[in-house]
This record gives sequence, C-alpha cells and structure tokens, in this order.
Amino acid sequence: MSESFDAVDVITTKRDRHELSDDQIRWVIDAYTRGVVADEQMSALAMAVLLNGMTRREIATWTAAMIASGERMDFSSLSRPTADKHSTGGVGDKITLPLAPLVAVFDVAVPQLSGRGLGHTGGTLDKLESVAGWQASLTNEAMMRQLEDVGAVICAAGSGLAPADKKLYALRDVTGTVEAIPLIASSIMSKKIAEGTGALVLDVKVGSGAFMKTREDATELARTMVDLGTDAGVNTVALLTDMSTPLGLTAGNALEVRESVEVLAGGGPPDVVELTVRLAEEMLSAAGRGGQDVAAALADGRAMDAWRRMIAAQGGDPDAPLPTARETQEVRATASGVLSGLDAYAVGVAAWRLGAGRARKEDPVQAGAGIEIHAKPGDAVREGDVLLTLHTDTPDRFERAHAALEGGITVAPQGTTVARTPIVIDRIA
Amino acid sequence: MSESFDAVDVITTKRDRHELSDDQIRWVIDAYTRGVVADEQMSALAMAVLLNGMTRREIATWTAAMIASGERMDFSSLSRPTADKHSTGGVGDKITLPLAPLVAVFDVAVPQLSGRGLGHTGGTLDKLESVAGWQASLTNEAMMRQLEDVGAVICAAGSGLAPADKKLYALRDVTGTVEAIPLIASSIMSKKIAEGTGALVLDVKVGSGAFMKTREDATELARTMVDLGTDAGVNTVALLTDMSTPLGLTAGNALEVRESVEVLAGGGPPDVVELTVRLAEEMLSAAGRGGQDVAAALADGRAMDAWRRMIAAQGGDPDAPLPTARETQEVRATASGVLSGLDAYAVGVAAWRLGAGRARKEDPVQAGAGIEIHAKPGDAVREGDVLLTLHTDTPDRFERAHAALEGGITVAPQGTTVARTPIVIDRIA
Repeated sequence: MSESFDAVDVITTKRDRHELSDDQIRWVIDAYTRGVVADEQMSALAMAVLLNGMTRREIATWTAAMIASGERMDFSSLSRPTADKHSTGGVGDKITLPLAPLVAVFDVAVPQLSGRGLGHTGGTLDKLESVAGWQASLTNEAMMRQLEDVGAVICAAGSGLAPADKKLYALRDVTGTVEAIPLIASSIMSKKIAEGTGALVLDVKVGSGAFMKTREDATELARTMVDLGTDAGVNTVALLTDMSTPLGLTAGNALEVRESVEVLAGGGPPDVVELTVRLAEEMLSAAGRGGQDVAAALADGRAMDAWRRMIAAQGGDPDAPLPTARETQEVRATASGVLSGLDAYAVGVAAWRLGAGRARKEDPVQAGAGIEIHAKPGDAVREGDVLLTLHTDTPDRFERAHAALEGGITVAPQGTTVARTPIVIDRIA
Repeated sequence: MSESFDAVDVITTKRDRHELSDDQIRWVIDAYTRGVVADEQMSALAMAVLLNGMTRREIATWTAAMIASGERMDFSSLSRPTADKHSTGGVGDKITLPLAPLVAVFDVAVPQLSGRGLGHTGGTLDKLESVAGWQASLTNEAMMRQLEDVGAVICAAGSGLAPADKKLYALRDVTGTVEAIPLIASSIMSKKIAEGTGALVLDVKVGSGAFMKTREDATELARTMVDLGTDAGVNTVALLTDMSTPLGLTAGNALEVRESVEVLAGGGPPDVVELTVRLAEEMLSAAGRGGQDVAAALADGRAMDAWRRMIAAQGGDPDAPLPTARETQEVRATASGVLSGLDAYAVGVAAWRLGAGRARKEDPVQAGAGIEIHAKPGDAVREGDVLLTLHTDTPDRFERAHAALEGGITVAPQGTTVARTPIVIDRIA
C-alpha cells in the first residue's frame, strides 16, 4: 500500500467505536509484523477490538492481511479434492486421529496441520507422538507426496503460514486478549485459508471444557469463521458440539490414541464414533463426495488400513505397544444414584496436572499420563464404584489432580432423569 | 504487600468489567514500575480501564499506589499555609504567571510545580524561560527557601514524584490511552498529592482547545479529581472554565509573559483578569484566608512586586526586554459582521506550528513565536480588519499556520447577536 498511518490513530479509531479502513488494517498488520508497530500498541488495539468488536468486512481484511504476511500452500496439483477439519479444542477430543484416515478412504485428501496442547486441552501432535517413531515435522514436498499416496497427513504447521498470527497470538496470550471472537476467528482461518484446503469443517466446541462457554458465543465464532471461509472461496461448514463433559472415555495422549484405534477397529465409545462419522460426512459433502456409507469403512477395516499407512508414512510403528504411566489412582463414587455431571473443564485440568498437558510451550508432556473414564453422565452408579482412573509417571501430581476434580463430579439421587446432551448441537453453513 | 498476582488475571478482571482489588492495583503499579509487568500488558490494562472505567475506590487506590512509587514533599515546616493551582491545559492559558505572585501577596505560599508544553497547549516553564536568566530547575531546599522568602515559586517538578506516573504517561501517549478519565485524574492528582500542597484549585478546561471537549466529560474529570484530593486530605475545589476560544489576546511564550505583566500592572484583557482573580479567591479560601480584596493587589502594584521578587529569585531579570519573533504576518477578516467564532484549537495548532510549541519532548521552542489576537467573539469586524498577527522566526512556517486556522474563524452577518460564553462555567467542590 502507498499510504502510511500512525499507530495511535488506528488504535483510537477502534477505541472510539469507528470502523477501521482496509488500508489501516493492512498497514497495522504489516507494520506489526515488521516491528514498526510496537507490542504495547498492538496489545492496546487488541483490547479495543475485544471490547468494541469488528465488522464482517474488518475481520475479512484483518484475516487477509495475516495471510499476506506469509506463504500460501497449493494443493491444486493433487488428483483429488481436499478437506480439512478444525476443532476449537476440548477435553478428550481425539477425533482428528480416526477422522483423517476415515475420510481418506473415500478419495478425499486430508491435509491436517495441527498444533500442540496448551492449558487444559490436549494437542493432536502430542497425542500422535506417543506412537513409537512417529514424526510431526514434514517438508512441504513430503506432505504433498503423502497426500497423493496415503490420502491423509497429520503434521506440524510450518512457521511460514501467517507469521503475523504467530506473533499476535503470543502477544494476546500474555495481555488478556485471547478471548476476542474476531481475533480467534481470524487466527484460525488465516492459517486454514493459507494452507489452501478446498473444503473445511469446523468443530466449534461449547461448554465448560471449551473456549466458548456459551452457545451464543460459540454461534458467533462459528458464524464469523464460516463467513471468512466462504468469502475466501473455501467451502466451509461448522458444527456446534457439546463440551460440557469429556468426549469419549479417555483424556491424555497415549490413552486417546488407544481409544482412537478402538474406533478405527469398529468399536470405541458411541459419542466418539458418532462425532467422527458426522464430521467425515460433512467433510466428504463439502468436498463434493457426499452420500457415502462412512460407518461401513470403520466396520470393515478400510479406515484402519488408512491409519496404518498414515502412521507408517511418518516413521511410526502402528503395531508398537503404547506407553503407559508408571502409577495409577482411582476416583470412586461417594454416593449411589445417577451420575449427573462429569465436568469437562475439571477433567481437563486434572489430566493436564497429571502430566498430559503443558503450562508453557517449552514444557514436555508425559505420553502415558491422563484419565480413564468409567461412567458418563446419565449412568447409574453405586457408592464405591470406580468413576475415574488417574495415570501419571509422577505420583506427587495426584493430589493436585484430585483438587482439580473437586466439585466436578456430581451424583443425583437414584431415579433422577439426567438428560443426555446430544453431541451435535447445531450446524452453521 | 505479601501476595503476588498474575498480570493476565488483573487485565482480564478489568476487561470483564469487574472491580480490581486494592491488592491487585498496588501490585500492578509496583510491578510495572519495577519492569515485572511489561509495557504491552500495562497498555492492554489501560485500554480496558479507558473503555470500562474504574470506581472511586479503584481510582483512589491507583493514585495512592502511584504516589507510593516515589518521594513525597512536605511543606509543614513553612510559616504559612500552601495552595496550588492546576490547569488541565488550554490555548493562551498564562494564568499561573500572574496568579502565583498574586496569591503570595496574601501570605499563602504557592508551590507551583509545572511542566512543558506538548502539542497545541503551551507550557508554563516554556513561557517563563523567555525571561532572560530565569531557571526552571530548583533543588528542594531552594524551593523551600523561596516559598518562605518570596511566597511563590514556579519550577520544574523533580523526577522523584510519582515515577510510576511518568512511565505510565509515556506509555499512554503512544498507545491511544491518554483519554481515560480515571488515568488522567490519577496522573494529575498523584503528583499534586505527592507535592504536599494543603489546598488545591483545579482549573478544568472545556471546549475545542481543551482536552475535555464536552461539559459532561469535564464535569466527570473535575468530580473525580476533587474526590481524590478530598480523600487524600487536600482541600480541593475545581472550576470548569471555557476553552472554546483562546484565553486573553495572546498565545505563545514571550507574548503570554507580556500579557501577564500587563495584568500584574493592573491592566490586561478582562477574561484573563477575571479568571486570575477568581482562581486567587478560590485558592485563598481553600487555604483558610478567604474574603480578601484580591483585585486591589493587582491595581496597587503588590502583585507586581511579588512577581519581580519571584522572577529574580530564580535568576531572571524582570526588566529585560522580552524576545520578539523575526517575522510577522497578518490574518484579516474576509467579510464584515460580527466575529462569531475564534476556535481555540485552531489558534493553538497555528501557534504551535509557528514555533511556540513542540511536537516531541526533545524539540526546542521559539520564545517569540505565537499569535496576537485583535478581536474576540462578539466583536464587530469589518472586511480587511486585522484579526490576528502571526509571529515566527522561521517564515516557512506561515503557510502551515494559515492552514491550521482555516475554518477556525467565522464571521456572522451584521446585527447577529453572539452570546459570550462566561469564563467560569461551573464550580465543583
């Protein structure tokens, strides 16, 4: 752009509830990436955006400016269409693991650029790294080759995609400005659009274990992201899904891989199977390959075959035993009745404290740490029943995990009807 | 304090419209002063304060924490009471110059710690430095001695008062967070309370040439500052005064000294005399010496004597001729009628561009630069009459000064009644 702006003018424009012009947005993102706009100026602008919002046009320009700060990938030379899935993050959310190979079965390529866990939600790469030999980092060439040969790849996003987002996310993390819906949406979508997928299905989690605690916020985030994707020519759809209680029966890295393999073998917990199948159907439909019997590919082993090829292509041994934690402890029901609540956030924090997650980016994770769940909300329980098994290599962590679970498990009197929340709450397209 | 806090928790508390605790406020100010809280965190907090406000208790604690970051002065050993005045800044506001010696005539000591001009409003120290030999910097001991011997001192504030405010003000200046009323109030009052004055009169300007453009904002700022002073044991009162048009008939450093000396000689423009007398009466009353004939001390030369002693005590020569600018240009009326508007902001920016003010702290100012005003709103004017004389040492600045004045001078048809705004709009105690 030819014009240059003053950072204070841009900040005060948003502070005073006016719209930022396209030129202002392009300038501020570019100048921030180059270090001309200082961190203390960008954090003040981020707070003003958080409190005063942005219009659809402002968010679209902001996202485009972040994409323009880095490289873009191009899958147009592949022989098949591409579809990707992004989850806003939850407890026990291992869906990417069975989903990517399942979709690949139907000749749609899945380029799944993933991240690591931070805080109480797990990271897909952390989970897969509990498979012996598996490597998260791929060159772009290796990724393209694997997409053509295997059809699915789960790997680390290169640092070349949307570097402005990388810098801005680190800033937001320390300045109380993570929770701005326009900034969350543009952060996610800038990377997905730069990645170059043709179709995108968003799994927007809502509930205690999710980033978005209310259906209203989750709907706004989903709507914003679907609009951004659509405006950028990506066939985008979003599902709002429940995260009031953990997904499946495990939270933790190797524990979740084990459960994913059960799903790929035709078994696994019903909620994980249901969401995997539903997301696969959405991805296939968005990629122009809808109307196929997805569940059959789980039952007949085709998805498992794709999983094994996908793991092996990145150096992993699909037959190697998964790591287990050195120590376990049980959490038992303190009353008889109906399990009325198993709070996703409480379980997520407990698993994190057991060693499944990290407090800072640099921290290691324990492959075997986490939580096994033996009862879900709505199940009848008797006093003394084992509800959870806690796993860790470092038993001094048990106490803090128990503390995190306090108040997170509720048992209602026998005969109480506990409504089971459906997994898929809404669909936004 | 014994507790330590997390900066992000403090920021999100204010972001989410909750009250900050006293411990949170004390911690964040102290940690920011020590560099533990980073600039990008403080600017995000400042933006949240600007948009979400603070309660009276929060502002009082914030101010006390800024006072606690540095030294406090103590005038209790003086033989007379102290009173200070603070103006929020305007165009042509030279009131401090005649006011300080005038109040000293009545045995009330005036410890006037002043600043330099930034932007379109002038600075008292810049004005006085156009007096040959006059020195702005005094040691605390010299200041006390002058207060005892002369009764009035106008000097630079030492860096030891409220260093947290100094750091925070510099940050707010570059992050679009200057205009937060709680932060403006605590910035002003932390220095005035730390300075140790017994009584304080605030001149809160309202209008185009002031920081506060609306009466509502000015009233809120005045109320906030009066509450802060009162809570800290300082006898505080505020006047809301008009700044829609410049005060008096000059804007610029030596030009304003000349006008101030006219007032001290018993003459001068009626608006400057009126405000000087009114503020002196308020200061004397707040210091317990009310009910005296202030105007008489201007008419009979006592205030002039105090001025001469005050200037001489700081090395200045009250008889030295004042500097004049090398070049002048005139601005003439383009129509006949009644001068209906002479915009304070336009005149302030023009004087600044002529060299009377500075764009950055490090810039020098021209002693002789500025504007003489020959007609005030409500005066009859004829086409071709000289309305303003522009003064500068650097004639290439004339063009930008004329541009600043564009639209700032309005002439209504002959016979129009132009209401003259009273100088003092309201009193808040």
